Amino acid sequence: MSHRRSREKNKGVLVIGLGRFGSSLSLELVNYGWEVLAVDTSSRRVQHFADSLTHTVVADATDEEALRQIGAEQFTRAVVAIGTHLEESILTTSLLVDLGVDLIWAKATSRRHGRILEQVGAHRVVLPEHDMGERVAHLMSGRVLDYVEIEEGFSLIKTPTPRRLQGVSLSESGIRKEFGITVVSVKHSGHPFTYATQQTVLDSGDLIVVAGRTKDVERFAELS
Amino acid sequence: MSHRRSREKNKGVLVIGLGRFGSSLSLELVNYGWEVLAVDTSSRRVQHFADSLTHTVVADATDEEALRQIGAEQFTRAVVAIGTHLEESILTTSLLVDLGVDLIWAKATSRRHGRILEQVGAHRVVLPEHDMGERVAHLMSGRVLDYVEIEEGFSLIKTPTPRRLQGVSLSESGIRKEFGITVVSVKHSGHPFTYATQQTVLDSGDLIVVAGRTKDVERFAELS
Amino acid sequence: MSHRRSREKNKGVLVIGLGRFGSSLSLELVNYGWEVLAVDTSSRRVQHFADSLTHTVVADATDEEALRQIGAEQFTRAVVAIGTHLEESILTTSLLVDLGVDLIWAKATSRRHGRILEQVGAHRVVLPEHDMGERVAHLMSGRVLDYVEIEEGFSLIKTPTPRRLQGVSLSESGIRKEFGITVVSVKHSGHPFTYATQQTVLDSGDLIVVAGRTKDVERFAELS
Amino acid sequence: MSHRRSREKNKGVLVIGLGRFGSSLSLELVNYGWEVLAVDTSSRRVQHFADSLTHTVVADATDEEALRQIGAEQFTRAVVAIGTHLEESILTTSLLVDLGVDLIWAKATSRRHGRILEQVGAHRVVLPEHDMGERVAHLMSGRVLDYVEIEEGFSLIKTPTPRRLQGVSLSESGIRKEFGITVVSVKHSGHPFTYATQQTVLDSGDLIVVAGRTKDVERFAELS
Amino acid sequence: MSHRRSREKNKGVLVIGLGRFGSSLSLELVNYGWEVLAVDTSSRRVQHFADSLTHTVVADATDEEALRQIGAEQFTRAVVAIGTHLEESILTTSLLVDLGVDLIWAKATSRRHGRILEQVGAHRVVLPEHDMGERVAHLMSGRVLDYVEIEEGFSLIKTPTPRRLQGVSLSESGIRKEFGITVVSVKHSGHPFTYATQQTVLDSGDLIVVAGRTKDVERFAELS
Amino acid sequence: MSHRRSREKNKGVLVIGLGRFGSSLSLELVNYGWEVLAVDTSSRRVQHFADSLTHTVVADATDEEALRQIGAEQFTRAVVAIGTHLEESILTTSLLVDLGVDLIWAKATSRRHGRILEQVGAHRVVLPEHDMGERVAHLMSGRVLDYVEIEEGFSLIKTPTPRRLQGVSLSESGIRKEFGITVVSVKHSGHPFTYATQQTVLDSGDLIVVAGRTKDVERFAELS
Amino acid sequence: MSHRRSREKNKGVLVIGLGRFGSSLSLELVNYGWEVLAVDTSSRRVQHFADSLTHTVVADATDEEALRQIGAEQFTRAVVAIGTHLEESILTTSLLVDLGVDLIWAKATSRRHGRILEQVGAHRVVLPEHDMGERVAHLMSGRVLDYVEIEEGFSLIKTPTPRRLQGVSLSESGIRKEFGITVVSVKHSGHPFTYATQQTVLDSGDLIVVAGRTKDVERFAELS
Amino acid sequence: MSHRRSREKNKGVLVIGLGRFGSSLSLELVNYGWEVLAVDTSSRRVQHFADSLTHTVVADATDEEALRQIGAEQFTRAVVAIGTHLEESILTTSLLVDLGVDLIWAKATSRRHGRILEQVGAHRVVLPEHDMGERVAHLMSGRVLDYVEIEEGFSLIKTPTPRRLQGVSLSESGIRKEFGITVVSVKHSGHPFTYATQQTVLDSGDLIVVAGRTKDVERFAELS
Repeated sequence: MSHRRSREKNKGVLVIGLGRFGSSLSLELVNYGWEVLAVDTSSRRVQHFADSLTHTVVADATDEEALRQIGAEQFTRAVVAIGTHLEESILTTSLLVDLGVDLIWAKATSRRHGRILEQVGAHRVVLPEHDMGERVAHLMSGRVLDYVEIEEGFSLIKTPTPRRLQGVSLSESGIRKEFGITVVSVKHSGHPFTYATQQTVLDSGDLIVVAGRTKDVERFAELS
Repeated sequence: MSHRRSREKNKGVLVIGLGRFGSSLSLELVNYGWEVLAVDTSSRRVQHFADSLTHTVVADATDEEALRQIGAEQFTRAVVAIGTHLEESILTTSLLVDLGVDLIWAKATSRRHGRILEQVGAHRVVLPEHDMGERVAHLMSGRVLDYVEIEEGFSLIKTPTPRRLQGVSLSESGIRKEFGITVVSVKHSGHPFTYATQQTVLDSGDLIVVAGRTKDVERFAELS
Repeated sequence: MSHRRSREKNKGVLVIGLGRFGSSLSLELVNYGWEVLAVDTSSRRVQHFADSLTHTVVADATDEEALRQIGAEQFTRAVVAIGTHLEESILTTSLLVDLGVDLIWAKATSRRHGRILEQVGAHRVVLPEHDMGERVAHLMSGRVLDYVEIEEGFSLIKTPTPRRLQGVSLSESGIRKEFGITVVSVKHSGHPFTYATQQTVLDSGDLIVVAGRTKDVERFAELS
Repeated sequence: MSHRRSREKNKGVLVIGLGRFGSSLSLELVNYGWEVLAVDTSSRRVQHFADSLTHTVVADATDEEALRQIGAEQFTRAVVAIGTHLEESILTTSLLVDLGVDLIWAKATSRRHGRILEQVGAHRVVLPEHDMGERVAHLMSGRVLDYVEIEEGFSLIKTPTPRRLQGVSLSESGIRKEFGITVVSVKHSGHPFTYATQQTVLDSGDLIVVAGRTKDVERFAELS
Repeated sequence: MSHRRSREKNKGVLVIGLGRFGSSLSLELVNYGWEVLAVDTSSRRVQHFADSLTHTVVADATDEEALRQIGAEQFTRAVVAIGTHLEESILTTSLLVDLGVDLIWAKATSRRHGRILEQVGAHRVVLPEHDMGERVAHLMSGRVLDYVEIEEGFSLIKTPTPRRLQGVSLSESGIRKEFGITVVSVKHSGHPFTYATQQTVLDSGDLIVVAGRTKDVERFAELS
Repeated sequence: MSHRRSREKNKGVLVIGLGRFGSSLSLELVNYGWEVLAVDTSSRRVQHFADSLTHTVVADATDEEALRQIGAEQFTRAVVAIGTHLEESILTTSLLVDLGVDLIWAKATSRRHGRILEQVGAHRVVLPEHDMGERVAHLMSGRVLDYVEIEEGFSLIKTPTPRRLQGVSLSESGIRKEFGITVVSVKHSGHPFTYATQQTVLDSGDLIVVAGRTKDVERFAELS
Repeated sequence: MSHRRSREKNKGVLVIGLGRFGSSLSLELVNYGWEVLAVDTSSRRVQHFADSLTHTVVADATDEEALRQIGAEQFTRAVVAIGTHLEESILTTSLLVDLGVDLIWAKATSRRHGRILEQVGAHRVVLPEHDMGERVAHLMSGRVLDYVEIEEGFSLIKTPTPRRLQGVSLSESGIRKEFGITVVSVKHSGHPFTYATQQTVLDSGDLIVVAGRTKDVERFAELS
Repeated sequence: MSHRRSREKNKGVLVIGLGRFGSSLSLELVNYGWEVLAVDTSSRRVQHFADSLTHTVVADATDEEALRQIGAEQFTRAVVAIGTHLEESILTTSLLVDLGVDLIWAKATSRRHGRILEQVGAHRVVLPEHDMGERVAHLMSGRVLDYVEIEEGFSLIKTPTPRRLQGVSLSESGIRKEFGITVVSVKHSGHPFTYATQQTVLDSGDLIVVAGRTKDVERFAELS
């Protein structure tokens, strides 16, 4: 296997664990041009993704020797996508930290798990179940079609165009003043999304992306 | 228990399962003013959230009788947040469909699981591990701090301001023409996020939210 | 293996699962001239039936790829004879539905299981334990030797000839008027079953098949 | 509990095991006027059927003392509806034999299991999965809607009326001569099933029940 | 393997199960000149005894086909030495009965287990734990060194010579009259056991075997 | 509980474990007038024997404190009837040794287990499965009805009377000279066993007990 | 419970886990005058030590809330004596670190486990199995009766007096020069250990403690 | 394999079990020049240490035959480093005793386990978890850096130099008189440990080893 790259070091990502999270991550990475070395203890899972990913190896990432053999210390980026077994997740992260990997992402299943991963030395921690739970909460009204909090208290939502905005230009609608939000993208019926300007006039079938403080976009989404 | 609401029927959400996903969903819902009836088979988990959620019940949601007793058929919105046990997830969804709940969200652990939930009658299916895996893939470069695909092929990212955009107004930078992207929000160092206009001038410490076709925002994010 | 038939497509049945139900079904099918492709995850079971069935394959029918490899989509008839594992039963049925099999029978272990199989798309659902339980209930008196409900409320039973019918022709007995039932077949002692006519005279050792409304045949069977 | 009946001894059935088979059997028995004493080790199952059955008891039927306490030896009829655990099924049957129950039905999961139950002393043995498998095999063509073998080699089927029989009286059709079968019941479209006579004229939407040698009815069913 | 004997059919014993009981039985049989075919599902156990027994086979004796392949039906004697798994013990015994083995010994772990084995058709049933428990009970006093009940109420014991019997001939001692017991064998200190006569004179270091009614030998053993 | 006896100390036996061996031992002891304190960890088993045995206690005999509380150190006789769990058997024996019980019997499941019990300090070790296996081996011929080796190489057997011995007195038969065996007890048809003398004349239906060297009694038993 | 001490804060130690290590540690601490609050999830273990330790609590130390309730944050010293379950050991340590306990000892079962505990924030890590293994290695010769490495490369051993040292004073023996070791304590036969001086004269039955570089004391111990 | 040494018999140690204790013991032994034959049932563990130890074998040490094949009886020294499975630990020790190994060390997990090992015949028993727990207890104050009890009531500790001893010679300090302890080794800041004499003058950064009665050294360690 030739995953010991000398130069294009930044093109490689080491992914430990090929479960739901790890596999969709790996496939998306490959899709966007990254080289991926994916590691899993299950030969069945590894075989399943052998054709789709750059490199796949059956190995136990809680074993330092095994990590060295696959050249883990030469990666600048690694993702510990083991989530179910706390112990293996922590062991692997600890080893990658000591091997000197520059940027370690780790998946956690609870806040405390995430905290330990940080204490051990992970640089970024992600909680899929937890975060997605919060995100779906904002879609319950039925009016919010997608939601992402870009920063504590500042969010973007996708929503149908409320009656208030239909038939007038965005600047005329005074919506920014009244609600404190900005319409940043628009999808006219039958077209892809594009940017919105102050001159954009919305129709009843249009979808819009709105940015603003979370409270404000929530309030705005209640318009119908 | 008084969760059989007569009028504000639209304020209630029935959440089945208080794992990571279900609990963070429920807490966020309550946080934004919803009434939540959360159900779990584990009395320990139910007790843990008894103070934080509107109503909590220990019940087996795969038992039709139990669902009737908690008034499940009176809810217009339900979330089947059981993810690990395929069987229980499907059984519960099937029962809620037959009880006539208007809008059923269900969490799936695999695409096929999701497909079955749809066949059974779930209205919206979410795959947290899978979706989060794809999303994190876009953060690997280190330049993209957050990423959300608002629609197939159209994305929003949070990124530091590349040198190209520093010191000139957005309209002067010609960035929309060159990259096909729009800067829609900006966070000047030390301030919260706000909207960006064509007159906005960015500085080296600023964070921006950029919207555009996925390929375009990816390419833009490679600027440093 | 040559189970990809081009013309006599209607002679083939795909049977998933070689347990008690699936194996006796498969053997009976072969016995009556059908081609059967039987699939099971257990190589031991598959081997056990290799000589008796047309084709047997070890495969995991919850894996779409595996189903395609055995040509599942070319079958017009399939039986999902997996009963114990709800999950596998539903997964396989869901896959066969999406592969476009025309007629899918599925075995269920409970009414809800059966309901889900229907929601997922199974065309016919059978509950062996449940149905046989009901049927045996009608044999408890000791007089009813066999029982089958041909339609809700209309049944056929096998029973010894009650004294009332002995020595007179069926038309003379007035049995149809009095009980609303018809004697449709008769087995004179020492002979096989044959049809009965109004002229048939029954003896004490004869067995008869009686048709009529369930309540009526039950009442008739109480005669001794 | 008053299940120790002195006279109407023949109205009572002791059912051991409240699984799918035992419960549907018990409900059907009660439905047709029998007194049922149902026994199961699971208090949950017993409770589930407490309202629907005459008497229900939580007891371990493999314990002789427990059987005596529920008065098992006073029953003339018992059904051992334990099927999954061979050992418990055999133990219970052995005990009921030694307690002198007159008529013991027992459910088996395999031929050998059935054979042992007979060796131990069961009077009637039933194999639901096996029998239903054979029966469903005869429904595969799509033309046979129901099938029951009343005796080795002699069967009854429910089937739509083939073109050959439409518009002429049964005697004119010569069907008994040609196929060796008899039409014994008929369901004219929109009406319940009733008996057929030689004068009956069938229409295209009618369903019929046909009796005859298995080979003959199978051949007849192929007519369309 | 040549265990299909044509003439010396009476020299062969089929032993199913090589646990403690089955193996010591088999070794003792071989020791006394029998041919033994020992069968066990564990290849490790079979291998362990391969050198010590006439024939050893790894086979599943609950599988009729397997029993036929080892020629089980040609044996006149078989021992079902499976004790722990009731189910396998009963299944194997049932099969050997149907195969027509003349004399079947079977080991049971409880009286009910033994009863079922008899119902199924075993000719002799043995309960090692149970019988040995009873036997050891008679050794508790410390005076009884060995004990065997040759028939209900008639026993033989080995015991040191009580003072009463020392120095006089057995006829003089009047022991048979007084206690109703007979001294049948004697082991003079330093010699092997031999028969005792009325003239035998016992010494203090001698061991004796005494026969008589159980109550009588028990009472006799209390002498010191 | 008053099992702390001051004087009749020799009438008590402490039995640890109420499995097959321990329970039949205990019942037999009580039957012959011993006081028994039976101990088991299973409350169900203890309850089962509460009425039949002198004293029964639920306790963990691997816990020194528990043994002290039941007064174990005051017993002169104890039987460790735990056989399945090697560890518990050894732990309990070790504790009883250190508590100073005078005579400790222990049941073993293998020779090595027995050896360890002796090393730990058990005074007598018994191997029921093993010993019974050897004993049954001697009953295979069908002529030997019971067998016990009273000492290495010296045995007693129960057998029908061979033709050679019928109709003559034992002294006339010359059987002791020819075979080296002695007929020690006899059961004339229809009577209980009694002692045999040289004048005893045997009939064809009589059973006899024969003593002698193992090889000799085996040879004698082959007579028919 | 009054373990929330206000002043003598330094007298208290929080011990998590009452296994072999934790319990002997706790007992020794109490023995030397410390107040100990011992925590375990097993009520049986907690009860076992309730009388011997200052305070004992049944609690799950992986639950932050539980730790707060027992006042964990008020301790200056804690020992995480959980060794078998890596996960619980790490979780508890992580929580104690965040609660601000000053000095945290933690038991590890492997070097990597120890490393993670340090990464998480434990101040001292101990590996009993590992360390004791190394220590016992030095006792294999039979001459070294005890061994402790006080620092990498510097050790103390207990050993019998070699002939070379018998009968002369330590200064005369020149042992420090020749071997580089010092005799620091001596136990004259029949007396307790005491200090040694240059004038001490050793006898053949004396035991000595010798200090020096590990290699030197090892070499010295080979003298006999 | 050539571990059957003829002469340098004393250089070999047989180590059973390559867990934490056994492996660190084995490595340390090899490090100090011993030949080690290490045995474990896990091929993975054996392989892991194959390069570091003299000889490694995969074998089941509870099997006498296996022990003979590796020549266990030729060793004069053996360590039973199996700790978790009481049963295997005892079985192996029992076998080694009977094979005649001169010096058997055995690891125990509890006092009773240790006692049984002694009863079975182990010469030296070690309890790592227990002993280390006691030892760490003495390090809780923070002043005692290492502690070893060389004999019941006589200990050695490593501690920083208390103010009382700084700047004067040991003889001047009168410390032996006042506290009954002796400073036996000293580590001047920046140097390795060496012996202390009465003339040694200690500085504030020095570490010392102190010997004396346990109570005395504990009291001394409280000085600061």
